[in-house]
This record gives sequence, structure tokens and C-alpha cells, in this order.
Amino acid sequence: MKFITSKDNATIRLAQKLKMKKYRDREGLFFIEGRRSVEELVMSPEHIHTLFVQEGYEEQDFIRSFGDQVCVLNEQLLNSIADTQNPQGFAAIAHQKKYDFQDMLDSSGFWVLLDRIADPGNLGSIIRSCWAFGVGGLLLTPQSVDPYNPKVVRSSMGGVLHLPIISEVDDEQVQSLQNHNWRFLCTDMQAMTPYYEADLTGKTILVLGSEAEGVSNKLKKICWNSLKIPINPQVDSLNVAVACAIIVAEAARQRKGEYRLL
Amino acid sequence: MKFITSKDNATIRLAQKLKMKKYRDREGLFFIEGRRSVEELVMSPEHIHTLFVQEGYEEQDFIRSFGDQVCVLNEQLLNSIADTQNPQGFAAIAHQKKYDFQDMLDSSGFWVLLDRIADPGNLGSIIRSCWAFGVGGLLLTPQSVDPYNPKVVRSSMGGVLHLPIISEVDDEQVQSLQNHNWRFLCTDMQAMTPYYEADLTGKTILVLGSEAEGVSNKLKKICWNSLKIPINPQVDSLNVAVACAIIVAEAARQRKGEYRLL
Repeated sequence: MKFITSKDNATIRLAQKLKMKKYRDREGLFFIEGRRSVEELVMSPEHIHTLFVQEGYEEQDFIRSFGDQVCVLNEQLLNSIADTQNPQGFAAIAHQKKYDFQDMLDSSGFWVLLDRIADPGNLGSIIRSCWAFGVGGLLLTPQSVDPYNPKVVRSSMGGVLHLPIISEVDDEQVQSLQNHNWRFLCTDMQAMTPYYEADLTGKTILVLGSEAEGVSNKLKKICWNSLKIPINPQVDSLNVAVACAIIVAEAARQRKGEYRLL
Repeated sequence: MKFITSKDNATIRLAQKLKMKKYRDREGLFFIEGRRSVEELVMSPEHIHTLFVQEGYEEQDFIRSFGDQVCVLNEQLLNSIADTQNPQGFAAIAHQKKYDFQDMLDSSGFWVLLDRIADPGNLGSIIRSCWAFGVGGLLLTPQSVDPYNPKVVRSSMGGVLHLPIISEVDDEQVQSLQNHNWRFLCTDMQAMTPYYEADLTGKTILVLGSEAEGVSNKLKKICWNSLKIPINPQVDSLNVAVACAIIVAEAARQRKGEYRLL
């Protein structure tokens, strides 16, 4: 256990740099905070780079066994590296896990492809729901918000540590997915098939578009079917994280045995 | 149409005061911003108190007919009263609509009761989903976040103007609901019945609890049935707005005819 008191300590400086995507990409690390997220992290010890603990919390059982990787800080210093006003005594630097696109290609299950999702809260919520409903993983097109953005990490409630995520998925990879018999679905207010009448089993990828522009025409064209979530016609649209949750919940319901959720 | 250039103008000062709940309650007004929300407001003209339009946007069709109620501001002044960095040229002061508890008591349908929901983004998202899925309305216990909080209003995407909302619902009113044969349901990870096997038709109230503490024991006791949303057992819980959307979507599906959503 190390006690750090200076802002100029190298580990503190690293934590602060990880607020920027450039450094997260370069180091392959990201910053998490909050008791719940850190508890989630210590369950996958291979992800841990550094655990930050506020003075007075260092004797907590779930922390003690990580001796060398634990840094004890005073409240002020912990708050200075945190993104929220109240990190609840815990934060950490974690290793990003790289998932192999080829492995995904050869797998099966229900995946979600997000096309230029911009809002960190939405992406975090989608990660949390996909993790909860046993989705195989998440594919992100270029120009999507970074899944290791602090707000995404926070609102995923630990999901970012568990759900396979593959970023910067390009046209060529989308083509490979088609060649490997992945079937693409999207949502469309004008579609005829309600989501609960569609078959959501098999190798399926649900495509959801950005908050502002929806799914790109290029991706729409490769969709095998478009699904409707029937809503009040006065209402423009659902929030994208809500639409995602409703469909992945239905997929989990249809694929019950496969996901072992019950 | 009035042109306002001074921060000290009474209407500008009123807009600023409405950021505080105390003034919203006293005046029975609230502040909204963003093109989409203002477009939603002008469809219910009886709600309009004042429309704020940025110079250059005052000739938009949907604004022109409200002559006296329109104030034209320069960009800087509009931004100074807005809650976001980009109000997209439009904001407004709107009248709160008061819904009568007695009317609700004698009505029927599917309602949602939120117990001490604290996060404005969650409440806004719940309002948007409830509006979309034809929920009768929303009941809020004391200590819930104010539905006219600017962030709630924004994330409801106009829903706050349409969905009946009754705040400060107390124990006595809950008792009346029971006496009027409203049936209460809640969610519980330990419950036996998956939400899609429960009957969600009839006079039903779904009770959802605060992000931190869930549903109070007092409310749990009056629930006729508790529902399970089957998820990966590794995952703690779903986001409350996501859980709400999944269940109200299922209710809409079961009550299809009634809601005329299709």
C-alpha cells in the first residue's frame, strides 16, 4: 500500500491524463470511480492497474488483498482526480480489454451495432442493459463516443468491464459480418413488423443509429428486416437507450435457454 | 413581438428565477428550451406564457402567429437564460398543468408511481417513455425530483407537456387508490413472475423505487404482485428508467387496443 499526498505524483498525473481519449488510447488504460464500479473491477483482478482508496477506507476487505496496487489518498486528492463530486471513497485505473473481431465473427448470439452514438449517458446505459440481458457484445462505428469516456464508464455501472466492445468497426468489417451470415436488423417507425413479432434468435445484429440522425443509409440497406416499436403517433421517437433495452429484453426473452438468465 | 436587449427586463428575470423550484411552485410556470420542445409547446397554445426566439429565427412559421407572446433576444441573452450551451434558438416559459387526483382516481388504465426518484435524467426519460407507450400518467411521492426541473423537462422531449403528472402523492392518497380498486405492482429481483407472464391489463399502478433504495417497505406491502425482469445474475440491477420502459412497453403490448398505438 502506498500513501500519496502530492498532486505531482506520477500515478495521480496518469489518472488525470486518462480523462482525455488520446491518453486512454495511447496507454490502453481508463479511469473508473465509485464504490460499486471498483467492487466490480476487483472481481476481474487482471483488469486492475491501480486502486485509489480514500484514507479510512483502506481496511475494507475487498481492497486489502491488492497490497502493491493500492494507493491511499486524502479526500481532497481523490476528489481532484474524480470526475464526479462524490467518488464515494474509491477510484481506479483499469486496463482496457481488447476483443478480437475475428473471434466475434466466428461466434454466434445477439449483438448490437451502434452507429455514431454521441451521448455518453446513452452509451453507458446501453452497455449496462446489454450486459444485463446477455447480449454477446457491442460494435461501434467510427465517430461514436469512446466507451472509456468517464461518463460512459460511470453510467455503465461496471458493464464496460464485462461486455465485449469492439470500436471503430469499418465498412470492410461490416461486409465480413454479412459474409459470415450475421443478419442485421434495424428499427424504423414506418416498419410493418412489431419487434415482438420478429424472430430475434440466430446470429443477429441489431443496428441503432445516432440520437440526431438515426441509422446511416449505408447500414439501413444491409438490414434484413426493420422493426417497429409501436408508440403513440404524437411522439417523435424513443430515447435510443430505451429502444435498445426494449429490443434486447425481447431478444433475451426469445433466447431464454441460451442466455441462462432465469 | 417584443425585442428585449436587457438582462434586467422583468420577463428575462422571471425566466432565470424559474430555474429554482421555489419560484416554479409559486408562479405555476416552468422554463423550456430547444427547438423540439418549443415546437411541442406551440401545439398546446394554452400552455404558452412567453416564447423566446433568437434574432433571425422570429420569422419561422410556427412562431409567427403568437405575436404578443414572442420575445426576440440576441444570441448572448438567450444563452444566458438557457440551461444548456445550445438552446438552438428557442426557449419558452410555460404554464404548469395541474391534474386532479380525483379524476385520476375515477379513471382507468396503466399508471406509474415513482417513489423518491432523484435523478432528473431518469425522471425525464421515464416521462418520455410513459408518454410514448400511452401510460395514463405518473404519480410521484414527496422527495421525488421536481418534474419541472430544467433537466427533467429537457430529457422528457416534450413529454412533460402531455403526460398527466401528480406530485406529492401521500399515504392517504395511496389508500384512496386502493379503495378505488387500483392494483399495485412492483419489480423485485427475487420475484417469481417474469413481467411478461403477468397480467398488465385493468386498473394497474406500477411502483418503481429510487435509484439508491428501491421501493419503500410501506409501498411494497400494498403491492398485489411483484414482477421479475430476468437478467444476468452477475448484474446488480437495471437502470430505473430502463426497467420502467421495459414494463410499460409490455403493458402497451398487452393493452394494444386500448392505447391505439398501432
